[in-house]
Amino acid sequence: MTTQHETLVSKHAATLEAAIDAVNTRKSWSPFKDSPSSKIHGEEKPAAGKAAFEARLNRRFEMGLPGISGWSGEEVSPFTLDPLGISYPLCDPETLIASAKVAMAHWSKASPGLRIALCLEMAEQLYDNNFEMAHAVMHVAGQSYTQAFSGSGPNALDRGIEALAYAATAMDNVAPEAKYHRQFGRDEVALEKTYTLVPRGVGLVICCASFPTWNAYPAMFASLSTGNPVIVKPHPIAILPMAIVVERCRAVLSEFGFDPNLVTLAVDTVAEPVAGQYVEHPDVQIIDFTGSPRFGSHLERTVTGKQLFTETAGVNSVVVESVDDLAESMRAIARASSLFSAQMCTSPQVVFVPKDGIQTRDGHVSFDAVAQCIVDEVDALADSPKVAAGIMGAVQAQLSLDVVAEASAMAEREGLSILRQGGAYEHPDFPAARTRTMMVISGDSSHQAMYAEERFGPVLFIVATDSADAAAEEATELARTRGTISCYMYSTDDDFVDRWVDVYATVGANLSINLTGAMWINFAAAYSDYHVTGLNPAGNACLADLSFVASRFRIAQRRRPIRKDAA
Amino acid sequence: MTTQHETLVSKHAATLEAAIDAVNTRKSWSPFKDSPSSKIHGEEKPAAGKAAFEARLNRRFEMGLPGISGWSGEEVSPFTLDPLGISYPLCDPETLIASAKVAMAHWSKASPGLRIALCLEMAEQLYDNNFEMAHAVMHVAGQSYTQAFSGSGPNALDRGIEALAYAATAMDNVAPEAKYHRQFGRDEVALEKTYTLVPRGVGLVICCASFPTWNAYPAMFASLSTGNPVIVKPHPIAILPMAIVVERCRAVLSEFGFDPNLVTLAVDTVAEPVAGQYVEHPDVQIIDFTGSPRFGSHLERTVTGKQLFTETAGVNSVVVESVDDLAESMRAIARASSLFSAQMCTSPQVVFVPKDGIQTRDGHVSFDAVAQCIVDEVDALADSPKVAAGIMGAVQAQLSLDVVAEASAMAEREGLSILRQGGAYEHPDFPAARTRTMMVISGDSSHQAMYAEERFGPVLFIVATDSADAAAEEATELARTRGTISCYMYSTDDDFVDRWVDVYATVGANLSINLTGAMWINFAAAYSDYHVTGLNPAGNACLADLSFVASRFRIAQRRRPIRKDAA
Repeated sequence: MTTQHETLVSKHAATLEAAIDAVNTRKSWSPFKDSPSSKIHGEEKPAAGKAAFEARLNRRFEMGLPGISGWSGEEVSPFTLDPLGISYPLCDPETLIASAKVAMAHWSKASPGLRIALCLEMAEQLYDNNFEMAHAVMHVAGQSYTQAFSGSGPNALDRGIEALAYAATAMDNVAPEAKYHRQFGRDEVALEKTYTLVPRGVGLVICCASFPTWNAYPAMFASLSTGNPVIVKPHPIAILPMAIVVERCRAVLSEFGFDPNLVTLAVDTVAEPVAGQYVEHPDVQIIDFTGSPRFGSHLERTVTGKQLFTETAGVNSVVVESVDDLAESMRAIARASSLFSAQMCTSPQVVFVPKDGIQTRDGHVSFDAVAQCIVDEVDALADSPKVAAGIMGAVQAQLSLDVVAEASAMAEREGLSILRQGGAYEHPDFPAARTRTMMVISGDSSHQAMYAEERFGPVLFIVATDSADAAAEEATELARTRGTISCYMYSTDDDFVDRWVDVYATVGANLSINLTGAMWINFAAAYSDYHVTGLNPAGNACLADLSFVASRFRIAQRRRPIRKDAA
Repeated sequence: MTTQHETLVSKHAATLEAAIDAVNTRKSWSPFKDSPSSKIHGEEKPAAGKAAFEARLNRRFEMGLPGISGWSGEEVSPFTLDPLGISYPLCDPETLIASAKVAMAHWSKASPGLRIALCLEMAEQLYDNNFEMAHAVMHVAGQSYTQAFSGSGPNALDRGIEALAYAATAMDNVAPEAKYHRQFGRDEVALEKTYTLVPRGVGLVICCASFPTWNAYPAMFASLSTGNPVIVKPHPIAILPMAIVVERCRAVLSEFGFDPNLVTLAVDTVAEPVAGQYVEHPDVQIIDFTGSPRFGSHLERTVTGKQLFTETAGVNSVVVESVDDLAESMRAIARASSLFSAQMCTSPQVVFVPKDGIQTRDGHVSFDAVAQCIVDEVDALADSPKVAAGIMGAVQAQLSLDVVAEASAMAEREGLSILRQGGAYEHPDFPAARTRTMMVISGDSSHQAMYAEERFGPVLFIVATDSADAAAEEATELARTRGTISCYMYSTDDDFVDRWVDVYATVGANLSINLTGAMWINFAAAYSDYHVTGLNPAGNACLADLSFVASRFRIAQRRRPIRKDAA
């Protein structure tokens, strides 16, 4: 290792150690601050970040990629509805893959510790650059400024560092060498053995449009740290955040003497998608996918002989059996549902409430009163444009509004009640913003076809069930058959909770019980909360555990007699 | 945990701890003795084991399996050529799978520590029963008595315990619970989190005919210890060893209060194979396969949405660049090749020697002299029936003799030289035994079609190459394209070795360098030697590493506010 490399490893050693401790203890920890407050970051950085973002607009995004065959860019800001005007290099897949393979030879020889330190350096520099990233995420995904800053910044980088903690643990589990002594007959056999970590091959990271960085960091860092190059395939309508990431990673690699083609960007267009060419290429050995259940399950059904990690989505449910403070609990649901206008993989989509109502500390409350309370709490958020802007941000694509319109039409046709028409709210900073508050629809279990498939847009169903147990039964069955990433339960009855927690676990539904208050109930904390179980159709991977990293590298060994001069 | 369970966990705690230490340090270790010597085991056990085996013959093998629809057995002893006369239950796949799922519910609730202790108890009891197993393996697979005792007994059980060490490490990596404290705005959030290990589903273990227990133990123990039930699918011509294993595992499970249907046996016939029905069943979520590259690669190409672990075979090569003592090195090759008449996944099949010969401590030696030395060393083993019997055992199936006949015919047709005709040797104990010593064929790199595919039988190719580097080039390219499990190299030139070790690692070829002496060069020691890399067509799994176990279970979490009474 060079002095520069040794210094880098030392610089990040404490962070790595703390991250390993955090995933082992699963306590709250982060090396970053997830608030954009200028009290933390000073006055200069927010302005500089905004300026850096604006300087990206209406020009080519050059990053020295190999094999450029053209330029394209189709991004439109959900906040201004104006095109960003950025064009990105379109690259020949064979060239990107070949370049990655060339770069891999040197990278695979770097020590795991150095590769991890390089990734930590990337994370640190990306954090340092996070105000620009916040604007980039806002204007492709539609996230609010604060959410883009935190959720697509530190919270996502934390997931990346979490993956590094597991990669370090898994690679550290392999002794680099050993001496072996054993008597065989009259022979005293003495062997020296060497165990080499061998990366699996080129990693492909397919990113989603609504939350591009959140899954990309763990996937990229998991593959890179274990010695694999990475090709990032952003969604064609949300390229900029990943272009900034790739540019930064390439700069860090170059700065430390590695081939920048270890990290490249495979841009495509909606009309001519390119993912399939990478997926099918024999040199692509690892695929991380985040996105629609449709393409995710296609990959799950067709990809063989490669490592495939998917996170898609499902139907997240809430079961309300009984509560202490009704308004407090329904506010938690309304907030979680409204956050980013329900365009999150953890957004609750269905609230199951017993048709005969529930117990609260203030006595019995009817189904209708529970439903009305949710509507009231959604109203409270929607009625203040400033609050609405901070929570809901914008709707990324017209498609999500079509989902709402379709749900509305179906509801009317099928006889469900529309308790709340979702409407645009006026964004205080972006008058043209594509905004939408929650539509709330009420029905019963006979309307399962309506709410039992993922509707990726601002629509929430409140469903009357025969009983609380019937609610939990339906919620867990939906999780098993349709997939889920986060389930929620409200109950003051420990027997009820105890009766169902194992069922939720068996169907692979991570469960939040009785959460209220300032923390978003669908907030998933890196290092502490596992994200996705791999046990139901919402994905086969877990962010992050040992299985997320352990198969990204393999072990090759050699052995030979211990030489006398070495014995 | 009951007192009985606590006692069991205590009983095996030291073994588990020592096994974890052994895989971490990769030193030589085993809780067992792998010699059948009566000095170790006493006079009684060997006789009792033989008697137990004989008592199995010519009757039904009853083990209380559910869903029996018939009885069948087709085994023929390679030593006597007589049918064993044992018939085994044929079971309805749906019933076995349903029974496994029923049993899983209780098993998944047992602590990881208890499940591991149960597996260690199975291993201990199987070791205690190993003389019977030795005879069972001999008379279905054809292994010699000593090899059957060691290789299919302690050496295989060690692989199972090795898998338990990794399972313990992987499961121990998941904190069972945590307290989470973080400030969100003005809220001091305090959560209790619970992380539950959830087994993936029914495990299917498909065993090979020549070495059934060796891969079965690690697969069975890896799945069982992580909470999954296991259905063992033995090869229809080599059922008895796995029937004995399943019977013993079921007895241990019953003894400790668990449903014996956690381990069942799915017998089929050559005419009506049943594996596909299990492979395709949605409840079967884990598949461990050992056997032919043909069926293995079929599974690798077609199985999706399940965990698949394969070990098949490939073309194992030896590169001879230079040696110290020619006879010593060629003896090592001759012995490894002759062991079990080359019916092992680690048997060398091709020896590459530079056409201009090699350097030895006694000066330069021609290609022909090297080849003749190998032939002489094979002769030395073959000429003594007692030595031959101990090393070569019997040939399992006529198919392996057909392989030799086909190689012989091709060699004559293609103009290769048959340096040694393999012939039967007279077995001192079993005059009817199907025996065969090595056929040795010489050619050059132009005959690659002959030696570049696995020939599972007693045939060894010695191939002249343009140079030593050309030999290593061809060996590693064969490894990459055809697969390999063990490669061998002889060279006194450190520069040559250093030039090639990384290439071997990159193609996933485990390499033994300059091994001679009493230890079989193709001996792979559990806890110390990784077996199969997963980087070439010889299999996708590694026995054993973290990736062999880490995805056999998943993690489901729940979280709730810390209650005041619990805070």
